[in-house]
Amino acid sequence: MQMERLLKQIEFIKEIDKIKYIQRQTKLFNSDRRENDAEHSWHLAMMALVLAEHSNTSIDILKILKMVLIHDIVEIDTGDVFIYDTTKNHTNTEEELKSAKRIFGILPEEQSKELIEIWLEFEEGKTNEAKFAKALDRFEPTLQNDSNNGGTWYDFDVEYQKVHEKTKAINKGSTRLWRYSETLINKHYKVVLDD
Amino acid sequence: MQMERLLKQIEFIKEIDKIKYIQRQTKLFNSDRRENDAEHSWHLAMMALVLAEHSNTSIDILKILKMVLIHDIVEIDTGDVFIYDTTKNHTNTEEELKSAKRIFGILPEEQSKELIEIWLEFEEGKTNEAKFAKALDRFEPTLQNDSNNGGTWYDFDVEYQKVHEKTKAINKGSTRLWRYSETLINKHYKVVLDD
Repeated sequence: MQMERLLKQIEFIKEIDKIKYIQRQTKLFNSDRRENDAEHSWHLAMMALVLAEHSNTSIDILKILKMVLIHDIVEIDTGDVFIYDTTKNHTNTEEELKSAKRIFGILPEEQSKELIEIWLEFEEGKTNEAKFAKALDRFEPTLQNDSNNGGTWYDFDVEYQKVHEKTKAINKGSTRLWRYSETLINKHYKVVLDD
Repeated sequence: MQMERLLKQIEFIKEIDKIKYIQRQTKLFNSDRRENDAEHSWHLAMMALVLAEHSNTSIDILKILKMVLIHDIVEIDTGDVFIYDTTKNHTNTEEELKSAKRIFGILPEEQSKELIEIWLEFEEGKTNEAKFAKALDRFEPTLQNDSNNGGTWYDFDVEYQKVHEKTKAINKGSTRLWRYSETLINKHYKVVLDD
């Protein structure tokens, strides 16, 4: 029984290796090299550890770590959807849910169930933990774009309002991180706001 | 004060991006592409989540996640030391401690102190959490080498006894993972053991 469980877990560990080949549009800090989903997920986990104090509410850090570590695993089947891609549906949960069920389903049943639930909680974005995890998921590329002279905002000619609107999701998890992000966006779009 | 803390944390978040350029000798599963330290650290965190039940003792999963997420950050300054490299000192804690102090030292003081302590606990390998985290750190390349027809064991002509001795550190954290690892090593070295 224990060996049977271990073999399923090892199969899962091998399967999720594929996330290292999923390339994001966003590039590493001060770099031309695109980031992959494993690197991105590691960075969000580190950000969760050091930025938790800036959450708008008290949060369960272990749950957030689980969320950010697994949040992009579904992209092994569905691929990365660029946040400013206007041709794709950003709420394609059916395809992603199918992927979640396939990949997490490799694990023993109760582990599979737990990870699917955590992934769904993240996707739905309603709990305090999901809001903060989603804030980190927006904050990392904001910092990266700032370090890359505008990064994907400029590369893809994204309008100020679009960047502002998408990035503002940070505010649901952390008003402080959002205020800081807004100064970075405004700087790159040379926006001067009246107080 | 809060902004001062945030700016230090952001400086740290940018600094640790460099771990994505630190290449390991071990390659991804069924692959010729070498793994970097960020990918490796993410994978260990995922392994901690799904393999915790195989620890020899009860463990604090949050502490293990912190350990595996940060354990290689010092390599930003010191570089990756290949486990089977016989020309290098594998207990060069002085240089690594200097690196830990520089990099974690970017953070606000109490965060810096906590992460240096967790890193030292991992390095010393004495607590239950450190033993299990170190087991995972050996188990991932064991699985990778198995998937790559012997991987670094064959690439660097490492003798069976050396591989066995180095990998056996897994036993301190998990006898079950070690027994499984031993079967993989024996298979690649065509070793048949008497029971």
